[in-house]
Amino acid sequence: MSNNKAIVLLSGGMDSLVTAAIAAKENSELYFLHASYGQLTQRKELQCFEQIAAHYQAKDTKVIDLGWLKNLGGSRLTDAGFEATNETAAKSYPDTYVPFRNANLICMAVSWAEVIGARSIYLGVVEDDGSGYPDCSKSFIHAMQKTIDVARGASHPIRLHVPVIDMNKSEIISMGMSLRAPFELSWSCYFASDKACGKCDSCRLRLNAFAKAGFEDPITYQGA
Amino acid sequence: MSNNKAIVLLSGGMDSLVTAAIAAKENSELYFLHASYGQLTQRKELQCFEQIAAHYQAKDTKVIDLGWLKNLGGSRLTDAGFEATNETAAKSYPDTYVPFRNANLICMAVSWAEVIGARSIYLGVVEDDGSGYPDCSKSFIHAMQKTIDVARGASHPIRLHVPVIDMNKSEIISMGMSLRAPFELSWSCYFASDKACGKCDSCRLRLNAFAKAGFEDPITYQGA
Repeated sequence: MSNNKAIVLLSGGMDSLVTAAIAAKENSELYFLHASYGQLTQRKELQCFEQIAAHYQAKDTKVIDLGWLKNLGGSRLTDAGFEATNETAAKSYPDTYVPFRNANLICMAVSWAEVIGARSIYLGVVEDDGSGYPDCSKSFIHAMQKTIDVARGASHPIRLHVPVIDMNKSEIISMGMSLRAPFELSWSCYFASDKACGKCDSCRLRLNAFAKAGFEDPITYQGA
Repeated sequence: MSNNKAIVLLSGGMDSLVTAAIAAKENSELYFLHASYGQLTQRKELQCFEQIAAHYQAKDTKVIDLGWLKNLGGSRLTDAGFEATNETAAKSYPDTYVPFRNANLICMAVSWAEVIGARSIYLGVVEDDGSGYPDCSKSFIHAMQKTIDVARGASHPIRLHVPVIDMNKSEIISMGMSLRAPFELSWSCYFASDKACGKCDSCRLRLNAFAKAGFEDPITYQGA
């Protein structure tokens, strides 16, 4: 490939960490993009972002403040008044859904890609992790790709890469282990920032997946 | 229609002003969204936005800081070091292009629409004004609509409305005049914020269009 600049959307979670590991194998210049949008674990995720970006010798990093998403309301992830419970309300999306977040993040990455001349954007979205987020599906990514193609024209493509979209969490861990991804720098817990709570949906998915993959999770949990 | 909430993207220019006038005719509850992204005339545009929103009795307004777009660089509109000249460099997009801006704005509007339950988003994009912006085309709007449809599902549509996309500037002015749009509250100049420069591409388009439509432009120009 003549162009080996890639932007990686990096939340600090496992999916985007392993996506970064894959991008590092496929490209020589990595640019990392992180969004703070008022999520409860914002500071922790930012710290993980910086450490993972340093690990992969980022050429440049950008942290974008999506605080306006918090001001819109509508999600438990951005609302400190919400109680962390395991009850699931009878609505179509999980209450950790941030409205149209991935679409916003992808558009920001495309803006940056246009400026630096990157041809690839890597995202750690996963379709089948049971979250039911409408903007994690392959059909959504395809539609976004088409929108980018229309705006860019055929001569200046920017490709969305979603290398873990078809993997389950334990496959993602196995892939990451084979690429020596630094899982100790990743964060999954929705609610705690010191020791992971071990109880929220995201912690339980992570713990089950490490068990299934046959590895020990290197981060610390409450009560452990 | 059972739902008559609409979001209007309002820059403060003529196209979005007339789009707001059309939205006001077609909906009973209007929500106005404005983005500041470090453009030279940011303060003036914000003032116009507030006045136009007040004119149309906005139910709510949001101003989103897209300062990160400025930090990305790559556009004359967001770079105070750029000289305002009439020379056009030999590149494929005008140098007032802000990378993928409309896609970012539309995604933000969709996020807000999801939260307030709006079913319509109005945008004042114009395809044939000669700007050559790749994210003002009908095919781009269609692709964005499809992306929204995929994410939302058929049961919760959010429609993009681009009522002036096929009009030229003098048709937009005539339409606005017939709807009593307050053109005195709008702003088009790319570079000045007190009296319009009258020389930049945007001023010249505006002045020519008022002349062609047979109306007098109510704003003040330098040297006038």
